[in-house]
Amino acid sequence: MMRTIWWEDEHIALIDQTVLPERLEIRRIGTVSELCEAIVSLKVRGAPALGAAGAYGVALACHLSRAKDEVEMREDVLRAASELKSTRPTATNLFWAIDRVLERVHGASDMDEMRTAALHEAERLAHEDVLTNRQMGRVGAELLEDGDVVLTHCNAGALACVDWGTALGVIRWAVLEQGKDVSVVACETRPLNQGSRLTTWELMRDGIDVMLICDSAACSLMRAGKVSKVLVGADRITRDAVFNKIGTYTHSVCAKEHAIPFYIAAPLSTFDISASESDVVVEQRDGSELVYCGDRRLAPENVRVYNPAFDATPMENITAIITERGVLYPPLSTDGLP
Amino acid sequence: MMRTIWWEDEHIALIDQTVLPERLEIRRIGTVSELCEAIVSLKVRGAPALGAAGAYGVALACHLSRAKDEVEMREDVLRAASELKSTRPTATNLFWAIDRVLERVHGASDMDEMRTAALHEAERLAHEDVLTNRQMGRVGAELLEDGDVVLTHCNAGALACVDWGTALGVIRWAVLEQGKDVSVVACETRPLNQGSRLTTWELMRDGIDVMLICDSAACSLMRAGKVSKVLVGADRITRDAVFNKIGTYTHSVCAKEHAIPFYIAAPLSTFDISASESDVVVEQRDGSELVYCGDRRLAPENVRVYNPAFDATPMENITAIITERGVLYPPLSTDGLP
Repeated sequence: MMRTIWWEDEHIALIDQTVLPERLEIRRIGTVSELCEAIVSLKVRGAPALGAAGAYGVALACHLSRAKDEVEMREDVLRAASELKSTRPTATNLFWAIDRVLERVHGASDMDEMRTAALHEAERLAHEDVLTNRQMGRVGAELLEDGDVVLTHCNAGALACVDWGTALGVIRWAVLEQGKDVSVVACETRPLNQGSRLTTWELMRDGIDVMLICDSAACSLMRAGKVSKVLVGADRITRDAVFNKIGTYTHSVCAKEHAIPFYIAAPLSTFDISASESDVVVEQRDGSELVYCGDRRLAPENVRVYNPAFDATPMENITAIITERGVLYPPLSTDGLP
Repeated sequence: MMRTIWWEDEHIALIDQTVLPERLEIRRIGTVSELCEAIVSLKVRGAPALGAAGAYGVALACHLSRAKDEVEMREDVLRAASELKSTRPTATNLFWAIDRVLERVHGASDMDEMRTAALHEAERLAHEDVLTNRQMGRVGAELLEDGDVVLTHCNAGALACVDWGTALGVIRWAVLEQGKDVSVVACETRPLNQGSRLTTWELMRDGIDVMLICDSAACSLMRAGKVSKVLVGADRITRDAVFNKIGTYTHSVCAKEHAIPFYIAAPLSTFDISASESDVVVEQRDGSELVYCGDRRLAPENVRVYNPAFDATPMENITAIITERGVLYPPLSTDGLP
């Protein structure tokens, strides 16, 4: 087990995901602004981990508040919540988790209770995330068989969550708990290489067989019959589409072309079923992510760049969605979720 | 015009494509081993440019030979040709060009004539390459219309040839000679970023509108209706498939899914029509290309990597192939080529 984010001495502690795999460094976050910076710079990323970060962020705001009374404290906390929500527009877990902790703050009767309730709720949410992921792993592992080669994109692992992981959590369950012979193809995931930096690192730590490829090599591997399943996480699931790291849609089209099952693993907190694809804002990130890599300049400085963080995969390309309450087969029912 | 490779003072001069776009540097190549190193390290790359490099390489071997007689000189030159052919296994132009110059060497009657004939043939081949590309541009530009947004992969430009380019040569003709309003989407082309480093650089030099994206963002751009055509080069064309930079096949599948025309631009010297897909050796390159980027380590050092330089796109995914003698519509005739 490897916890990604936790509460310690009135600070939030988190693994800095931008310096992996070179160094495993823990950042101590003492203010809401520092947390916002950590989210924007992707020191903490991944939909479930962003949920935990948002929840702890509200708890931190309660602890930092120097308000004279409950009314002032609620104002402080709402301001912090709004600042946190403005960091990244696409992953729904961030909003969901912040609102969940805010509700507890609103229900508290004095300032001490507000502080205690917020931290308690954040801790509970983080704890639930681990249980949810393990349950998703148990549910999803039934879809994996001995000999499977599972292609994944980005990092939907322990690092994307509080622990264990969503897509990688399913693979972990199959390999570590069920002893199945399952290996992984990790796409490097441009432009920020979460696949090469994070997915390979955490699978190798667990002794799970993994092979790294360029994102663009996935389709020819599929054509060669060397991929049996695709399994990725999600940042937001609307009634008609799954939003996930840019490139996910490409893999879904290629999987369909080669009749390879295409699975999503995501907790119910990632679902935003009242929304449809067109309601979602896809975060556009800075072009410098493609122009530079380390000290290396990869493109002319003034080149025009299109750098969306996510894409939308329509439900018809998705074989099934693995949740902690069972496997859903699209189209999703309009009656809601399990 | 920008020449990529030429003969100068008994040396081969070439633009070092590994340091672009940071620096435009010319390397002077004085031995066959230096040329082999330049090919393997991709200082010179692109199927037509490799043809010219191979041709000049044979001429260089003639000039360097200290043979006592014609028999010894032929042995020297054959040894050099074999060394040059072993550098990269996939692009067919390299073999074609070397054999073409070798034939002239074999036909010469004395050592002076061998030297002269080899250089003369290499110069002719390089000159023809530019004419061929311009002719291909003229032919292919008829397929492009005002308002087109053309997606390309890797660099099939002037830098991949002696000058002008194949796929980018078609776009150049449409924009610069015909005044059509055509813009380009350049895929960065992992792992060596020929798209970001070379394609954007040479298009921006010519004032042609270009936007850089991650390879994995192409499919969602297509789904959004923002790509009207795909146009790429080729490293070898067999009767059933086009070999080109890894990722080309992915784009062909995505283009098919979105009913977008998928074009190849390649001179007839790239065709190896007696062969089929299974006859071709796809070059496997070192895993370090994915593990490092500049000073930055992107993955655990001992990670297993699959890094093919090329993939195969079956003819059924290809709308048309633009050559210097006209546009071919697959399936290719077994009677041969125009």
